[in-house]
Amino acid sequence: MRGGSDEGASRIALYGLRGMGEVRRGDDLGKKIYESQRKEGIPFDDGDIYVVAQKVVSKAEGKYVELEEVDPSPFAESLAAFLKKEPKEVEVVLRESRSIVRARLGVLITENRQGIICANSGVDKSNVGKEGRILLLPEKPDRSAARIRKSLESLSGKKVAVVISDTYGRPWREGQVDFAIGVSGISCFRDYRGKPDMYGRLLKVTNIAQVDELASSAELLMGKSRGVPVALVKGYLHERGEGSRALIRKVTRDLFR
Amino acid sequence: MRGGSDEGASRIALYGLRGMGEVRRGDDLGKKIYESQRKEGIPFDDGDIYVVAQKVVSKAEGKYVELEEVDPSPFAESLAAFLKKEPKEVEVVLRESRSIVRARLGVLITENRQGIICANSGVDKSNVGKEGRILLLPEKPDRSAARIRKSLESLSGKKVAVVISDTYGRPWREGQVDFAIGVSGISCFRDYRGKPDMYGRLLKVTNIAQVDELASSAELLMGKSRGVPVALVKGYLHERGEGSRALIRKVTRDLFR
Repeated sequence: MRGGSDEGASRIALYGLRGMGEVRRGDDLGKKIYESQRKEGIPFDDGDIYVVAQKVVSKAEGKYVELEEVDPSPFAESLAAFLKKEPKEVEVVLRESRSIVRARLGVLITENRQGIICANSGVDKSNVGKEGRILLLPEKPDRSAARIRKSLESLSGKKVAVVISDTYGRPWREGQVDFAIGVSGISCFRDYRGKPDMYGRLLKVTNIAQVDELASSAELLMGKSRGVPVALVKGYLHERGEGSRALIRKVTRDLFR
Repeated sequence: MRGGSDEGASRIALYGLRGMGEVRRGDDLGKKIYESQRKEGIPFDDGDIYVVAQKVVSKAEGKYVELEEVDPSPFAESLAAFLKKEPKEVEVVLRESRSIVRARLGVLITENRQGIICANSGVDKSNVGKEGRILLLPEKPDRSAARIRKSLESLSGKKVAVVISDTYGRPWREGQVDFAIGVSGISCFRDYRGKPDMYGRLLKVTNIAQVDELASSAELLMGKSRGVPVALVKGYLHERGEGSRALIRKVTRDLFR
């Protein structure tokens, strides 16, 4: 099962799954996804890849913080004043972070507790459903992905993969795209290093972050303001694998922090 | 034609187009794509989006440099020694660049003449087909995209979009994904700023770089070692627009250069 086009697959289909209703703490997301897919009459196949928006995973795991219960530290207060942000929100971001990568121009970029570098440690106020409430990332997104995968596999009897995605900005480029923050059942990369190119020359550096590309392609269906929290990808051949840690560049290999 | 899922589109299909044969200087890529699609029996529709690998665009435009004709400057010599790279190759990278963003750990990140920040100004040795030859980016990728779009539109009678894509690494994350470097017939962004979220709260920052996501999704079919230089995306609703310049973050808004 080498990647993408290499073995003749020349077609991929993406389906947006709706009709999951509001997600509540304790919900079995695998079951909700399974039922939504069955209702829409989309077949279950080995090799299916489910891209699940972080937001519904965090909601199912009850990862809320009530801002009124947050007491900002003096450091959070002064950082918030500098960035013209809300001190309680900055306090939550700092609690979710290991280090600050940049704090300037009203932007707070951190390395969060999951090791991901992004704005505000990935905490979020939109689509949370209650004013004064903030949604954190899942505690262990890889474990969340594995749980959803196992639930889906036991219900459908198929071998599938799950990618949990979130929307972040990038250096150098305007606009946001989706990235993979939790992975189960698929390798993070499609690795061409040491393979010959079309002319027999060895490829030195190409190592495609296929799960990030899958997250981005799924976002095209998920959007931000409508209830499409899951996209199903069919027809993309891939190797199996577990975990998203390999996606995170070690600080000694990173020229931008 | 608001983006993605907003108006009921819940399915996207991606097709890899092969059978284009070797691309040569002067080739009409629009015509080659049209013929490949017709041969494969895939229908032509308004709103189709063609993602075209930079490499075939550069080949059609004859953007080759013969390394034996390159005379490296003293600066290129010393930078090459520091990075343990080939002086002639560094000279070509510098000629294609406006500024150096980082030069360390054997990596040379530049702002290239098109304004894109990436390794080696985007110049490439793999899949070029001749030792000692380097392929540059198209001179004006937006113009290249417009040319291909017009050729496809005149042959098919349909209104389509063209995105030229290339594969780059990212700060903070391992692996490469595809980005849009030339755009015609589609807006770069799907803009949610000022729109309400599911709960009526105004979204402040979400502005999806949809053409980058389209490039990444197309890469899933294009791969690196096989001849799939074009992917066709069907079913993704979008607003029309021209050019890729809006994707490039102004230096005053960029915390990472």
